[in-house]
Amino acid sequence: MTENGPDWARLRQAFELPDAHYFMGNSLGPLPHATRSAMRAVIEEQWSQGLIRSWNLHDWFHLPEHVGDRIAALAGAGPGEIVAGDSTSVCLFKLASAALRHSGRWEIITDRDNFPTDLYVLSGIRDLYPEQVEIRPLPVADIPDAVSERTALVLLSHVDFRSGRLYDMEMINRRAHDRGALVLWDLSHSIGALPVALNASGADLAVGCTYKYLNGGPGSPAFSYVSRELQASLQPILRGWMGHASPFEMRADFEAAAGIRGMVVGTPEVLALSAVKASLSLFEGLDLRHLRERSLHMSGALMATIDGIDGDHGLEIVTPREDSQRGSHVAIRHAQAYGIVQALIRRGVIGDFRAPDLMRFAITPLYQSEADIEALGTQLAEVLATREWADPAFSRRSTVT
Amino acid sequence: MTENGPDWARLRQAFELPDAHYFMGNSLGPLPHATRSAMRAVIEEQWSQGLIRSWNLHDWFHLPEHVGDRIAALAGAGPGEIVAGDSTSVCLFKLASAALRHSGRWEIITDRDNFPTDLYVLSGIRDLYPEQVEIRPLPVADIPDAVSERTALVLLSHVDFRSGRLYDMEMINRRAHDRGALVLWDLSHSIGALPVALNASGADLAVGCTYKYLNGGPGSPAFSYVSRELQASLQPILRGWMGHASPFEMRADFEAAAGIRGMVVGTPEVLALSAVKASLSLFEGLDLRHLRERSLHMSGALMATIDGIDGDHGLEIVTPREDSQRGSHVAIRHAQAYGIVQALIRRGVIGDFRAPDLMRFAITPLYQSEADIEALGTQLAEVLATREWADPAFSRRSTVT
Repeated sequence: MTENGPDWARLRQAFELPDAHYFMGNSLGPLPHATRSAMRAVIEEQWSQGLIRSWNLHDWFHLPEHVGDRIAALAGAGPGEIVAGDSTSVCLFKLASAALRHSGRWEIITDRDNFPTDLYVLSGIRDLYPEQVEIRPLPVADIPDAVSERTALVLLSHVDFRSGRLYDMEMINRRAHDRGALVLWDLSHSIGALPVALNASGADLAVGCTYKYLNGGPGSPAFSYVSRELQASLQPILRGWMGHASPFEMRADFEAAAGIRGMVVGTPEVLALSAVKASLSLFEGLDLRHLRERSLHMSGALMATIDGIDGDHGLEIVTPREDSQRGSHVAIRHAQAYGIVQALIRRGVIGDFRAPDLMRFAITPLYQSEADIEALGTQLAEVLATREWADPAFSRRSTVT
Repeated sequence: MTENGPDWARLRQAFELPDAHYFMGNSLGPLPHATRSAMRAVIEEQWSQGLIRSWNLHDWFHLPEHVGDRIAALAGAGPGEIVAGDSTSVCLFKLASAALRHSGRWEIITDRDNFPTDLYVLSGIRDLYPEQVEIRPLPVADIPDAVSERTALVLLSHVDFRSGRLYDMEMINRRAHDRGALVLWDLSHSIGALPVALNASGADLAVGCTYKYLNGGPGSPAFSYVSRELQASLQPILRGWMGHASPFEMRADFEAAAGIRGMVVGTPEVLALSAVKASLSLFEGLDLRHLRERSLHMSGALMATIDGIDGDHGLEIVTPREDSQRGSHVAIRHAQAYGIVQALIRRGVIGDFRAPDLMRFAITPLYQSEADIEALGTQLAEVLATREWADPAFSRRSTVT
């Protein structure tokens, strides 16, 4: 920490970075050195030497809570309010199914442009109760007024995966609570990218991804948040022996463990959770307000650079200009977005494409510098000026967020 | 492979083994050398260097099917019938919820002594439909006759986690099918321990664990089997974007991918699946009939050793003597089971305790030898003769399967 905030150059050295300008931290964060050594230790010592004893010796048993507590510190939540484990999709089902049973209501409202998995999870819940459950996918702007006494749950992404728009968590929570509805937030595109204020905003439920801004590794476990208040009454529907009050008594009847542990399902994913735990150590001692300030500065600079590129090229910035409404990536619309992204990649600037016409560039102050922003601006201007996006080498293919 | 079967001493060298006699392969298999190097490659090269490109370059995207196909070869299933991913508990929920919706019936029959997580998963499904679903936990012997035209699903463990009893998969499948019910098998204690004949026995659905006899690492992902025939009509209820027919089109409506891929939910657990994939390489070229023959020989020898220990000590072998009814562990009942297991561990013989009075010893021919069986017999006899189990150092505490 320097007088003006963290020593960013030093933080950057904590990662193994590719020889490229990497703007895909909202898809897969790079490998921290700390994770590499932690994984050697968990595999080559804890598993290899400790074997079964490591469940106690290295407290594998409580990894979901230990990792959860570290995430809680970034999410404005208290210790014992978050557990890590299972995929984001499974966590969404876990909390949405529990919320539905809890409410006794049948309507679920969501952003019609939500990340697909959020919509798919809800469609599965609807098919459990095809005659009762009503899923209402709405434009986000209509949601606050649409919530009613019939609404069981509102499911929203905190930051929109396409536009990068940041939603007002406190306002939506308040509107929903006024009508007795719960809100489930998907923090996949905000956790680790900006300060999240779960407790202060009165949040009920949340899930999030750890392989994006938390750098937990490809396909790393997600997390589940249940507010302490709600923990007293919310019963899991998706149950497993590791969420039992007394797992080793091997009782036939299910009794959920007290607190957030009741949301653990199967055996903790020790290797993957160990990777996340190590990657979270990079956030220790970091004030997320500094991260946020730098992120906004960098995304602002990127948008200014885009503005500076000759307007005839048809670039449209989709991400809100207003700081308070912007997450940590910049999305740009262009009819040739796919070819542009491919040309940039060939030039060592790695962003991604989202069908049909969006390119996205994540801002990750932990390991990016101003030089990355400059390089993106320069290369994008050249790709457009030379129409390099039309190169026939860029045939359409799939990519993964 | 020698003239009389595999070269067991050579197979044993593929593992990093503790300096102890390890009888807990039904809880956590040891680290294969191949896994250690595979994990270094996936972390320090694929993730670190390849980053997002590795989704295509190293085909991370299809890891669930690639690992599943390797498991299928051990389970008597065909390629494209198994995917790996999620915990065993989540996989149980995934298949049981889909089967229930598929059947239009409401009764689920299970072994009342089934592994707790199997019972807990069912209790969650019951709480989804408290007025319709009936869970009937029965003694296993009663199950074939209890299945009726009201039965949606029979959920059974192939090998009982306590007694080590092996159930007749073909007979139960036939009885259930005669009445139009489906069967979901939990293979956690049989996969990798003996030949499993899913296709030949007419199995519908199965799940299993990879961290026991498959040596996939602590908390490694489980797997789900859906017979090719059933794939045409079984719709997932637990859904995610990675099981979508066109995941990168980011469509709002869910359309399950054709075949077993539709059972994938969230983003594949790349690190953990890579560990399982590596550990499965040890089974390549191995005829499971040889493994089974040696396992039965060793468990038979262990039971003969127990028989030879003076009968006054009150040891009762719970595991069936009949080869065709025995899985790959031996369970022994004794009033002082807890203390005995602790004393054995102190003597370098590692088995486990299951409340209230069982000790279990797994037989794992891949890395055990006759010397392990002899050591167990010798040490157990001494512990009993000296009443070492009464040592006050052995205070009761939890352990993990």
